[in-house]
Amino acid sequence: MYRKEIKVLDCTVRDGGLMNNWHFPDKFVKDVYNACVQSGIDYMEIGYLSNEKSFSRKEVGAWRFCDDEDVRRIVGDNKTKLKLSAMADIGRIDPEDIKPKKESVLDMVRVACYVHQIDKAIFLAEHCMDKGYETTINLMAVSTVMERDLNEALEDVAKSRVPIFYLVDSFGSMYCEQIELLINKYKTALPKKTIGIHMHNNMQLAFSNTVTGIIHGCNMLDATLLGIGRGAGNCPLEVLLSFLKNPKFKLRPVYEIIQKQLIPLQKEIHWGYHIPYLITGAMNQHPRSAMKWMNGEDKDNLVGFYNHMLDQKDL
Amino acid sequence: MYRKEIKVLDCTVRDGGLMNNWHFPDKFVKDVYNACVQSGIDYMEIGYLSNEKSFSRKEVGAWRFCDDEDVRRIVGDNKTKLKLSAMADIGRIDPEDIKPKKESVLDMVRVACYVHQIDKAIFLAEHCMDKGYETTINLMAVSTVMERDLNEALEDVAKSRVPIFYLVDSFGSMYCEQIELLINKYKTALPKKTIGIHMHNNMQLAFSNTVTGIIHGCNMLDATLLGIGRGAGNCPLEVLLSFLKNPKFKLRPVYEIIQKQLIPLQKEIHWGYHIPYLITGAMNQHPRSAMKWMNGEDKDNLVGFYNHMLDQKDL
Repeated sequence: MYRKEIKVLDCTVRDGGLMNNWHFPDKFVKDVYNACVQSGIDYMEIGYLSNEKSFSRKEVGAWRFCDDEDVRRIVGDNKTKLKLSAMADIGRIDPEDIKPKKESVLDMVRVACYVHQIDKAIFLAEHCMDKGYETTINLMAVSTVMERDLNEALEDVAKSRVPIFYLVDSFGSMYCEQIELLINKYKTALPKKTIGIHMHNNMQLAFSNTVTGIIHGCNMLDATLLGIGRGAGNCPLEVLLSFLKNPKFKLRPVYEIIQKQLIPLQKEIHWGYHIPYLITGAMNQHPRSAMKWMNGEDKDNLVGFYNHMLDQKDL
Repeated sequence: MYRKEIKVLDCTVRDGGLMNNWHFPDKFVKDVYNACVQSGIDYMEIGYLSNEKSFSRKEVGAWRFCDDEDVRRIVGDNKTKLKLSAMADIGRIDPEDIKPKKESVLDMVRVACYVHQIDKAIFLAEHCMDKGYETTINLMAVSTVMERDLNEALEDVAKSRVPIFYLVDSFGSMYCEQIELLINKYKTALPKKTIGIHMHNNMQLAFSNTVTGIIHGCNMLDATLLGIGRGAGNCPLEVLLSFLKNPKFKLRPVYEIIQKQLIPLQKEIHWGYHIPYLITGAMNQHPRSAMKWMNGEDKDNLVGFYNHMLDQKDL
């Protein structure tokens, strides 16, 4: 599938950090950075931009904030072709706290929002553009949005200057026909914008839905090393690069860092396909209850979790 | 996706046995049987039919042979709606050794073959039909078959009495557009037959390719509990049943046996997505070299395996 417009974004540290509160050693983050540079990845998302009112440094690591000095500790002035991204959640960052691009080593700010926050997301993304950044809007949890609300949000995004809009399967609850319908809706509403895709693996569909995205015209593709990410994780970067035949991508650096960093990390953090994540995904529910169950003493009681979720649905 | 023609076949014991030489305790096989009955599965494949010239009972367990007395030890006379299947490989069973259906508790014999064995497969399958069994032909490794040879095989199958023909992704190397093309080819060549689908998970596509199969008209769907199977494993039964909304299927018995039998078994047998299986799948190679690597001392040397496979390709 050779389409030179396709860009791949690695969000190993940002999305993987949801599993360990971004407590990655610097060596890990540096190795991810070097692997992204060597393998020809287009963007690396190194964490979130957040204010200190929203999170305590006692609880979360540096990549929940992405202070410029922390990022430079890893990448220096980043004199490479790899672009660096950070994600901003609505309400967890003050727009005025974002430095002008010329003072920052970041290239892109991706704004994540729920549908009721779309106006705030457009404001924040355009604010970042005015400061010199590339931007995207990533509309989360679209699997729970009513059609009327989605249409209105798309109309607002269409009128904005934001050039990239993401299809996000936050709960890992969508399959190919749903992906196809939404991409076609996004493309019709936003004919001049790039569509991105960010999938989760609750039903083992993160990669295949990303392929569906490619087939239907998505040109920004999110992935993570060995699929690390919240709960069931994300589209695995190594599978995606095995599929894409673009000569700019190299697989060996990806296998090297998986061997060196991700396989050992799997012994500490249990992301990936597990039955509780399947259950929340198939029920179109946020994975938080599954993550809580997986961290509890009763984690192997799969039937117990199934009953628990069915009980909640009956309310 | 409600289509009442859809049948689900569990091949946990047959395909999973490729990982432990069919050394399952009777209790495991009985629990699988009971779970299949309770969850409304249509067929359970309990193993292979083989002769004792091909395999030694010192090396492989009872489910490589499926003697009638062994099967009855588990299922009695199987007075349930669940049908029982066994697979026959060309050359590893003598047709005359297959008992007439009226003396056997099996309902179906599925004949697995490579493309050059298609005549033998048709002969064996029709022989089984004459003895009273339901039958299928499962054409393996179609991802390596040249178009001309496949067309000829399909013409032969079209002329046969065999009612079901399977699309099999033996190496886990195909993605949705390839699946769609082959299903359409099979349907065009075999308009009066049922098309089945049996996928492997090397590129995390076993379930999504099965969904692609459903969308394009496959009505026999293979799956296994927690995706157990050779190498990267199969389409997970629990994900498939979460997707199918047919009221005849029940999920709870599936979660119960996964909790009771499959999760503990995962500590002994390492099926599922691992990088060496991805590498063979993406290269359209048999997983045997990856399975050998995964069983060796160097199994965590992923880059070593990648280099090893690239070296072989250069020859």
